[in-house]
Amino acid sequence: MDGSGLWLIGLGPGDLNQMSISAQSAAKSAEYRFLEGYTALLPLEEMNKLESVIGTWDLRMRSSVEHPEELLDLAQEHRVALLVVGDPLQATTHVDLQLRCLQRGIPCHVEHGISITTIVTGAAGLQSYRFGRQCTFAYPYGDYLPTSPLEVILENKERGLHTLALLDLDPTGMGEGNQIPMTPQIAVDVLLKMASKLEVDVDDWLLVLCSDMGTKDARVAVGTTQDIASVSGGRIHCLLIPAELHDVEEAALARW
Amino acid sequence: MDGSGLWLIGLGPGDLNQMSISAQSAAKSAEYRFLEGYTALLPLEEMNKLESVIGTWDLRMRSSVEHPEELLDLAQEHRVALLVVGDPLQATTHVDLQLRCLQRGIPCHVEHGISITTIVTGAAGLQSYRFGRQCTFAYPYGDYLPTSPLEVILENKERGLHTLALLDLDPTGMGEGNQIPMTPQIAVDVLLKMASKLEVDVDDWLLVLCSDMGTKDARVAVGTTQDIASVSGGRIHCLLIPAELHDVEEAALARW
Repeated sequence: MDGSGLWLIGLGPGDLNQMSISAQSAAKSAEYRFLEGYTALLPLEEMNKLESVIGTWDLRMRSSVEHPEELLDLAQEHRVALLVVGDPLQATTHVDLQLRCLQRGIPCHVEHGISITTIVTGAAGLQSYRFGRQCTFAYPYGDYLPTSPLEVILENKERGLHTLALLDLDPTGMGEGNQIPMTPQIAVDVLLKMASKLEVDVDDWLLVLCSDMGTKDARVAVGTTQDIASVSGGRIHCLLIPAELHDVEEAALARW
Repeated sequence: MDGSGLWLIGLGPGDLNQMSISAQSAAKSAEYRFLEGYTALLPLEEMNKLESVIGTWDLRMRSSVEHPEELLDLAQEHRVALLVVGDPLQATTHVDLQLRCLQRGIPCHVEHGISITTIVTGAAGLQSYRFGRQCTFAYPYGDYLPTSPLEVILENKERGLHTLALLDLDPTGMGEGNQIPMTPQIAVDVLLKMASKLEVDVDDWLLVLCSDMGTKDARVAVGTTQDIASVSGGRIHCLLIPAELHDVEEAALARW
């Protein structure tokens, strides 16, 4: 790792041992390290380990990443690492950083990471090629509740495709304060509210709740909305909403 | 890594330095190591390095993985690693291995890997959440040419979604012989044949060819079917077929 520039470095899904060899070595060689703390969240235990694994670091939230003058000014002269949970190019804002570097003639390097969106499908036992478009359940703000996530799920189901629903991390919607990952209960509540608005019956739907995937606490639960709403514990969750299951998928889900 | 069992170990997309720390350490501690050689392909240079990085290994093709008695008998008594390019649970056949282990009471562990299907979207500059279902272009066998991949692309496009088209590695379709990744020219030829069968005009489509992603030779080319068919070099390719582009995506593709 020579010269100055910005390194977008994937930390993987939560456990720092899942960083790639080259990502760890790039992170260690940086002169400045910033953890991007708003598109995803590192478990507290791993955050506490981060310094001993790759060196000192500072936290940066949404405004410093979307208005990255500080980062880019530094990267003009120094080796700057932006540490991102998962894979760094899964979020638009980091692709945008690449483009800004290009405009300013700052070298921008990428160290990919294992992304939750890849591993969750296979880890639960559903086939990745049978997934349609993803969606995200946002925290409800007052009376405002968009139904587009359920529309995506319904369209996918109609085509025989599973859906990955990511759950919001940010109750304020600002990307600046404490991240509070959505609980299974709130996620089910959001689903039921969307269903009632679109007059869809989801009571007999099979849902797959994936918790803390890619860490040693990973857990999968399969059941109805009621079953899933009652799951407690875990830090970060996401939901899979399967379409009709193939045989291997059915057997794979029966494990949980 | 204690006791006996089967370890499904992701090698990442091609460059062994992109294996995770824990995947490398699990691979090193195995008593037997088999490289699964038919769902994906390791660049020759990396295959030559494999022994020095993790230890001696043998190649296993489709029949030994789909009829895994040898693997499972060994794993009953020993620590057996099955090394898989990318992420090991992206292929049904490895989920099936998990289930067989469960039936026989053999511990089965997973070390995830960086998967091409995650990194290719962001690396090219398209947004992963805007992708619909994936498809695979198979080698044509005689006169038989399924049009389902193009149907998937058309359905996705209609919904404003991009498509990732993986390209076949196996001209025999048997998973046993030499893998010969499909060239850009053959891929375009397959696309044009499907288009002619479905009477769809793809001449003005913008295609994104991604070659050797996740290795130091990674290259992206953007253009019409004609442009893409004329791209030479590279080992393993895949195609992105974008729907309408958002601004950041357009700027990101303009880099190539």
